[in-house]
Amino acid sequence: MKAYKEMTTEELQALRADLHAEYKEYQSRHLELNMARGKPGADQLNLSMGMMDVLSSSDDLTCEDGTDCRNYGVLDGIAEAKQLIADMMEVNVDNIIIYGNSSLNVMYDTVARAMTHGIMGNTPWCKLDKVKFLCPVPGYDRHFAITQYFGVEMINIPMHADGPDMDMIEKLVAEDDAIKGIWCVPKYSNPTGNSYSDEVVRRFARLKPAAKDFRIFWDNAYGIHHLYDDVQDELIEILDECKKAGNPDMVYKFASTSKISFPGSGIAALATSHNNMEDIKKQLTIQTIGHDKVNQLRHVRFFGDINGMKEHMRLHANILRPKFEMVLNIFREELGGLEIGSWIEPKGGYFISFDALPGCAKSIVSRCKKAGVILTGAGATYPYGKDPDDSNIRIAPSYPPVADLEIATRLFCLCVKLVSVDQILAERA
Amino acid sequence: MKAYKEMTTEELQALRADLHAEYKEYQSRHLELNMARGKPGADQLNLSMGMMDVLSSSDDLTCEDGTDCRNYGVLDGIAEAKQLIADMMEVNVDNIIIYGNSSLNVMYDTVARAMTHGIMGNTPWCKLDKVKFLCPVPGYDRHFAITQYFGVEMINIPMHADGPDMDMIEKLVAEDDAIKGIWCVPKYSNPTGNSYSDEVVRRFARLKPAAKDFRIFWDNAYGIHHLYDDVQDELIEILDECKKAGNPDMVYKFASTSKISFPGSGIAALATSHNNMEDIKKQLTIQTIGHDKVNQLRHVRFFGDINGMKEHMRLHANILRPKFEMVLNIFREELGGLEIGSWIEPKGGYFISFDALPGCAKSIVSRCKKAGVILTGAGATYPYGKDPDDSNIRIAPSYPPVADLEIATRLFCLCVKLVSVDQILAERA
Repeated sequence: MKAYKEMTTEELQALRADLHAEYKEYQSRHLELNMARGKPGADQLNLSMGMMDVLSSSDDLTCEDGTDCRNYGVLDGIAEAKQLIADMMEVNVDNIIIYGNSSLNVMYDTVARAMTHGIMGNTPWCKLDKVKFLCPVPGYDRHFAITQYFGVEMINIPMHADGPDMDMIEKLVAEDDAIKGIWCVPKYSNPTGNSYSDEVVRRFARLKPAAKDFRIFWDNAYGIHHLYDDVQDELIEILDECKKAGNPDMVYKFASTSKISFPGSGIAALATSHNNMEDIKKQLTIQTIGHDKVNQLRHVRFFGDINGMKEHMRLHANILRPKFEMVLNIFREELGGLEIGSWIEPKGGYFISFDALPGCAKSIVSRCKKAGVILTGAGATYPYGKDPDDSNIRIAPSYPPVADLEIATRLFCLCVKLVSVDQILAERA
Repeated sequence: MKAYKEMTTEELQALRADLHAEYKEYQSRHLELNMARGKPGADQLNLSMGMMDVLSSSDDLTCEDGTDCRNYGVLDGIAEAKQLIADMMEVNVDNIIIYGNSSLNVMYDTVARAMTHGIMGNTPWCKLDKVKFLCPVPGYDRHFAITQYFGVEMINIPMHADGPDMDMIEKLVAEDDAIKGIWCVPKYSNPTGNSYSDEVVRRFARLKPAAKDFRIFWDNAYGIHHLYDDVQDELIEILDECKKAGNPDMVYKFASTSKISFPGSGIAALATSHNNMEDIKKQLTIQTIGHDKVNQLRHVRFFGDINGMKEHMRLHANILRPKFEMVLNIFREELGGLEIGSWIEPKGGYFISFDALPGCAKSIVSRCKKAGVILTGAGATYPYGKDPDDSNIRIAPSYPPVADLEIATRLFCLCVKLVSVDQILAERA
C-alpha cells in the first residue's frame, strides 16, 4: 500500500470519492453497533451461569470459620474470599480488604476519604489549596472523572511502550508536595494494552515523593485477563516491591472480578499495607456493617481456588482472542502501510488503542457515529476529555458478536481513511 | 411487689445478699449470650433460603425491559426492583435510587457528598466553620457514628411517646443555619420502638429551617417490620407530606431489605425528590457503573411484589413476636412495681428500650457482661456514647434462641435489681 501522504492530490481526490461512496453504502444499512465500553459479550457471561447454582436452599451458607454468611458482620471479607482474591492479586491474604461489587467505587472511596480525613494522619486534601494527580495518558476515563469530581488538578504523563514516563514522574513527585497520587493500570493497560516493565515497576516502588501522603493508585483491573496461554505479560508485584524499597505504605492496589464473573455482581478488593489498612478500617467501620458475604461465598464455591479462576479465564480468552485478532487483522489489511494511524497489539485486557493522524480522532468518532457505530468519545482517554493531539481512540472489541464486530471495524477503517484524506487535502489547500 | 425505694435499709441489705447469691449462681454457668445487636436469628434467615433457588443457570437473567442483569450498566436500579422497593417505601417509583447492600452506606455517602460537594449548589459542609445535626435520643449508634466521623456537632433532642420534641426542633432549625440535618427512625424507632404521630410527621414536613440545605435523614429501617397482624403503626408518608407543605426537597428517606431477606446481602435504597435525585446522580455516575443487578433481580423473583414481601414479614413476625413477648413478660414479672426501671412495649422493629434508674445503666451492662451476657454498651444510644442520665439500655431480643433469651433476660433483670439496690443503699449511706 502507498502511504497517503505520498499520493498526489489528484489520487487523493479520486480516493475520497470512492471512500465517500463506500461510506454512503454503510449509512444505508442503518447499523446500530457499539464498541464504546469494555463490556463482556453475552457468550462470556454465559461462562459464569454455573455461579447461579453453587448456592441453593439445601446448601449450608457457613464459612470455614463458622460465620453464617447470611447474617450481619465481617467488615473486611470472609477468610476464603480473601484467600481467593489475594491469590488473584498476588498478595498476602493479610493485605486484603474485600469490598462490594465495584472496584471503581473503592477507588472513589479512597479519594473521598483522603479528601475529608487525610491519609494516615496527614492533612485532609479538602483543607489544602491544591491537590494534583499524575495521569499517564491515554488512560481510563473513569479514573480521571473521580479526580476531576473532587477538583484535583490532573497532569498528563506520556505513556511509552514499557509504561509511563518515569523520568518525568520521579522529577514531579520529588519536587511538588501537592502531587498526592497517580492513576495506573499497570497490566494490559486501559486503553493502550501494554504492561509496565520490571524497571518501571522498580522505579515506581523507589519514588521519593515530597508528599508523605502520596499514593500510587494501582488499578490491577486486568491481572489475569490474558488473551494467550503461551505469551503472557508478568509484572513484578508492587506491594512487595514497595516494601523492599522501604516504601511499604505507598501503594493502593485495586481489583475486582467484574470481568471474571459478572460485571456489577462481582466482588472488588483493595490490597495495601497494614498501616494503610488500619487507616482505612477507621472509615470502613463507620460506613458499613459489612459487604455481601453470600456473594463472596458464591464466588469461592464457584471458582474453588485461583487455579479454577485461571481456568475460567482461559474460557474468556477463547471468546475474546478471535475478536481481538479480527480487529487487528482488519487494521493491518485496511490500514497497513497507509501511515494514517498506529496501534498496539495487546496480549490481554479489553482494549485496542488507536492513534490517528493528529487532529483526526474527533472526526473519525463522529463519522462512525453517523453511520451507526458508537465508539468511546475521542478525548475520553485524557483528563478533562481533552486529547491535546486529538489523536487517540479506544476500541473495545469485546461486546459485539463477531459478525457485527467485523462490520464495525471495517467501517472504522473507512472513517479513518476518509478523515485522513480530508485532513491531508486540507493541509495541501 | 414493693417499690425498692420504699423498702427499709435492712430489707434492701437482705435483698442484696439474696441477689448476690443468685448472681454467683449465674456466673458459675459460664454463659455466652448476646443481646447486643439487632441481628435476625438463624430461624429467620432460614425463611429466605428460597432466595438461593430463584435464579439458576437455566434461568434468564433478563429484565422486563430487556436489560441483561449480568452485564454492566443501569445506574439507579432495574425497573422491577425499583417498583418493589418503591411499594415497600410507600413512594412513587420515580423517586427511588437502588443502591448496594447497605442503607448505612447510603447514609454515609449522603453525608460524605454533602461534606465535599454540598447539597444542590450550597456550600460544601467541609468549607463551613461548623455543621450541626439534631439527634433524637435515645437513637441509633451507627447514625451518630457517621456524623461524629465527619466532625459534625450533635445536639440531643428528647424523644417523647409520639416522636421527638418538635417544639425544640422547630425552634433550633429556624434559628441556626449551621443545623444541616436530623437523624430520624420514624417507625418502630431504634431503640425506643415507638413511632412518630401524624402531628409529628406533619410538623416535620412544615419545618422552616434557616439552612437551605437542611435535610431530614428519615431512616425507614422498620417500615414493614410489624410484630402483629392486627395492631400496626401507620405513618404519614414524609416525601408526599413535604411536597404538600412546599418543602419537596427537605427529606432523604432510606431503607433496605437487610431484615427482610439477608442482612449484608439485601438491597438498599434512597427515596427523595427529583431535584435531590439529580444532585445525587452527579456523584453516583462518578462513583460506580452500577450496583448489583443480579441481586436486585433475585429479590424481585423471590418476593414477586409487595404482597409477597408483606407475607414474608408475617413469617418473621411469627418468630420475633414470642421473643419480644417473653422479654416483656419477664420484665413485668421480675421488675413490675419495683420502680427501678421502665420500658416501652413496641409493636414492631427490633428493640426494647429500657430506662434504668439514673446512673445505673453502665453498671447493669457491666454486671451482665461479667456473667456472660453481652448487651449494647450503655451510652451507645446517645451521641458521643454519652447518656447524660446513664439510664438507657437497648435490648435486642432477635438473635438468641428462645431458651437462651429467657436466661439472658432473667439475668438482665437480676442485674437491674442488684445495681439498683446498690445505688439506693449508696444514696442512703
